[in-house]
Amino acid sequence: MTTTALENLQFRLAARPVGMAKASDWQQVREAVRAIGEGEIVVKTLYLSLDPAMRGWMNEGKSYIRPVAIGEVMRAGGIGIVVASNSPRFAVGEHVSGILGVQQYWAGAADDKAAALLKVDAALAPLPTYLNVLGMPGLTGYFGLLEVGQPKAGETVVVSGAAGAVGMTVGQVAKQLGCRVVGIAGGQDKCDFVVRELGFDACIDYKGGAVKEGLKEHCPRGVDVYFDNVGGDILDAVLTRINLKARIVICGAISQYNNTAPVQGPANYLSLLVNRARMEGIVVFDYAPRYHLGVAAMGQWLKEGKMKSKVDIVQGIDNFPAALSMLFEGKNLGKLVLQVASA
Amino acid sequence: MTTTALENLQFRLAARPVGMAKASDWQQVREAVRAIGEGEIVVKTLYLSLDPAMRGWMNEGKSYIRPVAIGEVMRAGGIGIVVASNSPRFAVGEHVSGILGVQQYWAGAADDKAAALLKVDAALAPLPTYLNVLGMPGLTGYFGLLEVGQPKAGETVVVSGAAGAVGMTVGQVAKQLGCRVVGIAGGQDKCDFVVRELGFDACIDYKGGAVKEGLKEHCPRGVDVYFDNVGGDILDAVLTRINLKARIVICGAISQYNNTAPVQGPANYLSLLVNRARMEGIVVFDYAPRYHLGVAAMGQWLKEGKMKSKVDIVQGIDNFPAALSMLFEGKNLGKLVLQVASA
Repeated sequence: MTTTALENLQFRLAARPVGMAKASDWQQVREAVRAIGEGEIVVKTLYLSLDPAMRGWMNEGKSYIRPVAIGEVMRAGGIGIVVASNSPRFAVGEHVSGILGVQQYWAGAADDKAAALLKVDAALAPLPTYLNVLGMPGLTGYFGLLEVGQPKAGETVVVSGAAGAVGMTVGQVAKQLGCRVVGIAGGQDKCDFVVRELGFDACIDYKGGAVKEGLKEHCPRGVDVYFDNVGGDILDAVLTRINLKARIVICGAISQYNNTAPVQGPANYLSLLVNRARMEGIVVFDYAPRYHLGVAAMGQWLKEGKMKSKVDIVQGIDNFPAALSMLFEGKNLGKLVLQVASA
Repeated sequence: MTTTALENLQFRLAARPVGMAKASDWQQVREAVRAIGEGEIVVKTLYLSLDPAMRGWMNEGKSYIRPVAIGEVMRAGGIGIVVASNSPRFAVGEHVSGILGVQQYWAGAADDKAAALLKVDAALAPLPTYLNVLGMPGLTGYFGLLEVGQPKAGETVVVSGAAGAVGMTVGQVAKQLGCRVVGIAGGQDKCDFVVRELGFDACIDYKGGAVKEGLKEHCPRGVDVYFDNVGGDILDAVLTRINLKARIVICGAISQYNNTAPVQGPANYLSLLVNRARMEGIVVFDYAPRYHLGVAAMGQWLKEGKMKSKVDIVQGIDNFPAALSMLFEGKNLGKLVLQVASA
């Protein structure tokens, strides 16, 4: 196979967005896939993961990972199939996960650090599952809940962004541990989904507005662990209902990522003092040496039907900008995945 | 001694303050000390502790301790001398610490839970020390730093309200542990005091305005532990300089206690995520079973001259409202104590 005959459509970052990303923040580039050298492979992108964290990567400034540079292919996790290989590590036809970027083909060294390519077993679970429960979001939820949240059986766990990739994992893992699980999500459809299909005990529709009242009703013994994906008013509402020694896992703040005004800090943070409670951040990369343990545990639960992986698939790399907007508009139900090719 | 012959001047809470407490929020009552029954004692107040937390006790609403009721004697910790006793627990002439309230005499059961009376040894340390380094503020600093902050030798510890009772303890204990200690205080006098007299490595005068620049200069290896007594802009500034796995101890927020607007939440709280850092509240009462360990450790350091207890004494119970205002205006240098009687 002559990989250089392949045309590669890429989405590159053209400008740093102000607020929500818009069409002019992207530059579409078509170029031939480059010839590969010794130790290199070409991966054809099948699925790309669309994650709230991507918005942060588009901003300048110090964070847990360097920003995407202007003119650089937008960073994105994905699943692909090896279509050319000069490396003994991966054979043509094998499936891999890694940071493939928003492009049709990834070419580089098989052991490239930034790409972090790993084989995935398409026979064990559908490929998009490796971007969801068995991927970065799932592992974020798994380790964030267990290591930072430290829930005990019988405790009440609240998770926002409950129908998203991280949230659905957190809630389902907490149920496996014997916790009472209350989700917070935008819209009745999402709430119905996490309660009926994923087995959450209750879910509060924040678009209904009455988050505090919902917490009062559905968390009669208060909140022991809050896994926060959204920040803003919802974080403040939960802070009013936490128990003594509660743990708040700060995983994200999707409500604040497109702000043009300063981030809204939690005005009720002194509830941490009153309740001797803790608020702590989590970044999944810290748990890389133990990813396989999370995949093994959740893979088993998936196989036994104790856990589900719901994905919402948008077709076509051309739709990348629109699909990314869907995420911030809360239009997806389940983990949002962009299908770039079918095989 | 007929205690009923004693006149007792009390400051009672007349109204819940809006913003800073004002004269009309207090009612001065003079009444005779009541006759005591079996198991009861009368304590003559010598010194009262003036603490930022008192402002919170004057507000309605759930907190770590019930609010002072309208018409009730204002809550305050103090040191007194037993002047009448029908209890084998305390003899006349013994010194005690406890929640005596803003009044000249306290009368009640020797084992009253709310008063929490304890003997203090006037021979070991001057009495006001038991309201400072060896009292509630000192123990708050000691246990908050050690148990929540968990500093290691060589780490950088920053403490705000550095010249106050809690702050001076935190900084001096951190120095004993081999940390680099940087204070934040209001005014050059306070900064000079903590550096020259207490041995802090540096101190940033927040009234000079350049807190971020000061942190950059004096914390070249970042901030590992931040002990926050003030909240507001200073908390936000420190959040921009924390290290990976930093610990922020939330002890108070004196900048916010007299707010009539909502509390200012920390807009930079997502630094907790980026740095996998932790923010946790501390209430000293949780450590009551181990108070004696803190007193023993710090008592020894005081004796050896490795630690100092600086108090700022205002004379006369009549000056209680003015002295309390001094605290919030930052006019005290050292732990603010009201001397009510001389023996």
